[in-house]
Amino acid sequence: MRLPEDEARRRFASARVARLATAGPDGRPHIVPFTFVLDRRARTDGPGPEDRIYTTVDAKPKSSTDLRRLRNIGADPRVAVLADHYEDDWGRLWWVRADGQAAILDGPAAMAPALALLADRYPQYREQPPAGPVISIRVTRWTGWTARLS
Amino acid sequence: MRLPEDEARRRFASARVARLATAGPDGRPHIVPFTFVLDRRARTDGPGPEDRIYTTVDAKPKSSTDLRRLRNIGADPRVAVLADHYEDDWGRLWWVRADGQAAILDGPAAMAPALALLADRYPQYREQPPAGPVISIRVTRWTGWTARLS
Repeated sequence: MRLPEDEARRRFASARVARLATAGPDGRPHIVPFTFVLDRRARTDGPGPEDRIYTTVDAKPKSSTDLRRLRNIGADPRVAVLADHYEDDWGRLWWVRADGQAAILDGPAAMAPALALLADRYPQYREQPPAGPVISIRVTRWTGWTARLS
Repeated sequence: MRLPEDEARRRFASARVARLATAGPDGRPHIVPFTFVLDRRARTDGPGPEDRIYTTVDAKPKSSTDLRRLRNIGADPRVAVLADHYEDDWGRLWWVRADGQAAILDGPAAMAPALALLADRYPQYREQPPAGPVISIRVTRWTGWTARLS
């Protein structure tokens, strides 16, 4: 059954990892897991709050193909992200998807608020501050499903 | 660091849930979690084995938007699937992505081998056989990453 939006947002925010789907310039889908923080704040361009999901590229060396997410977002900012819960008791399954528009933040000032929120959430980012860039996703739609409301 | 292909395949096969990314007719990415089985068998059109990932739409009632994955695959068969492992010890993170070509199998004879493999793997499918259809994904590329090889 459908999750109410508030509950979908709450469950998403509680997840430690989610997955980011982007589309390549040729339309091929791409998907990677990512750590994130959800920030709900007053909208800058209208009434009501808005949700932003922040994630960063961490400081560990990775091969260049891991940055395909950045190239894809540069070509097409539409993304879908997913948090899900699995256990062998399928009555307890749930998932939450956020559709959104992504932007890449690269300057120190632009990245600072997101990096501070990420460091609050993940001690690893306090021990080893990520170099960035930051991906900022403005959520345009929440969709959630659960096998049963508990 | 990169996972060797054999190890990537082994870790993917051991996961109980993965995520399927597809692209909509307008290029927007879509993502859902799914149960699956990985089948490695002789290739029908050339030398060497090939990997197929099977999943199905289960018999539980769902709203029509959950079938967007099927509409997307009908319009563009290119998919990406991901299994990942998260824990707060980031030295133990890993993920495996399979890029592939999906096809929808809808007739009883076409679905039977995949449904039998799924029922072998998940007792839930023995108790409540899924109605189908089946999504069959021919893997064209394995990519895997781990924080450290253990």
